[in-house]
Amino acid sequence: MTTPPWTVRDSTYPLLDRWIRVRADDCATAAGVRVAPYYVLEFPDFVHVLAETVSGQIVLVRQYRHGIGASSLELPGGVMDPGESDILVTAARELREETGFFGGRLDPVVSLSVDPARYANRVHLVRAVGVGAGPAAPEADEAIEVVLVNRDEAIQLALSGAILNAAHAGFLLIGLTRR
Amino acid sequence: MTTPPWTVRDSTYPLLDRWIRVRADDCATAAGVRVAPYYVLEFPDFVHVLAETVSGQIVLVRQYRHGIGASSLELPGGVMDPGESDILVTAARELREETGFFGGRLDPVVSLSVDPARYANRVHLVRAVGVGAGPAAPEADEAIEVVLVNRDEAIQLALSGAILNAAHAGFLLIGLTRR
Repeated sequence: MTTPPWTVRDSTYPLLDRWIRVRADDCATAAGVRVAPYYVLEFPDFVHVLAETVSGQIVLVRQYRHGIGASSLELPGGVMDPGESDILVTAARELREETGFFGGRLDPVVSLSVDPARYANRVHLVRAVGVGAGPAAPEADEAIEVVLVNRDEAIQLALSGAILNAAHAGFLLIGLTRR
Repeated sequence: MTTPPWTVRDSTYPLLDRWIRVRADDCATAAGVRVAPYYVLEFPDFVHVLAETVSGQIVLVRQYRHGIGASSLELPGGVMDPGESDILVTAARELREETGFFGGRLDPVVSLSVDPARYANRVHLVRAVGVGAGPAAPEADEAIEVVLVNRDEAIQLALSGAILNAAHAGFLLIGLTRR
């Protein structure tokens, strides 16, 4: 048994602006069942950074997240800017803007999806080893607390449910467990 | 330093139907910076099941996911139906519909968020131990392949990036590592 793709007969954009692009597809499954409208969210790719300082600490950020309406302890990162095509460039930029940490050696780890049923984009994990501290430069609407933890604390935070973002819990466990 | 919530001055729904609810909030951060519109996606809560058969195998499902436009190997699960308020009921229903497996002992593991910046809902992980095989009853638009793997294989799938859904990779590693 396979899981063949759907065919798309027509697409419209019922909601489209700078911050969100919602596509509505008129689809047919491989078995010929019509699925319409099927909504797909088109965001730029997301990039998050598992950064380890020169003294071996993991760099996390705590910030208010308005979707869930609560504070969230996460990996630094964000969306790829227009014109950015290298995830390592986005990773280094977001890490520095949000936390001030910079430099070190950056490597791509894995590219997954936050929600393959609804999101068209990818979320990339970048590992940064040996980053050094510097001044942060957050956006005007960002209030970001930098939280440094050691490797075992980071794993326990992910396993315990203290990392609210399920993808980030996964990224922490993938990045810290599989080396 | 804290990460205080934003205040919402006004909310509208620029896209609202059976399958999607997009809320647009006119917000102010604690520092008084206006953020408008800020889009929030209101879905019912999601429930996913880490099910272990009576012979100790983990029950995964492979299905086409139209958001990303690719096949995805995932934990069984779905959205809570209207009127469902018990995540164990949703877990048992989705597991049986998608895979045919049923019974066993169900326990909640952790409740996280797929995307706390954009999603208002929660995603719940339920552990099911000792489930038995039966006939599946998928929806008309679902073509689901059941994939049984052992515990170590499941962990390796999550660590390797073969589980495309980052939250599900996290759930597998949380559910299988922290016992």
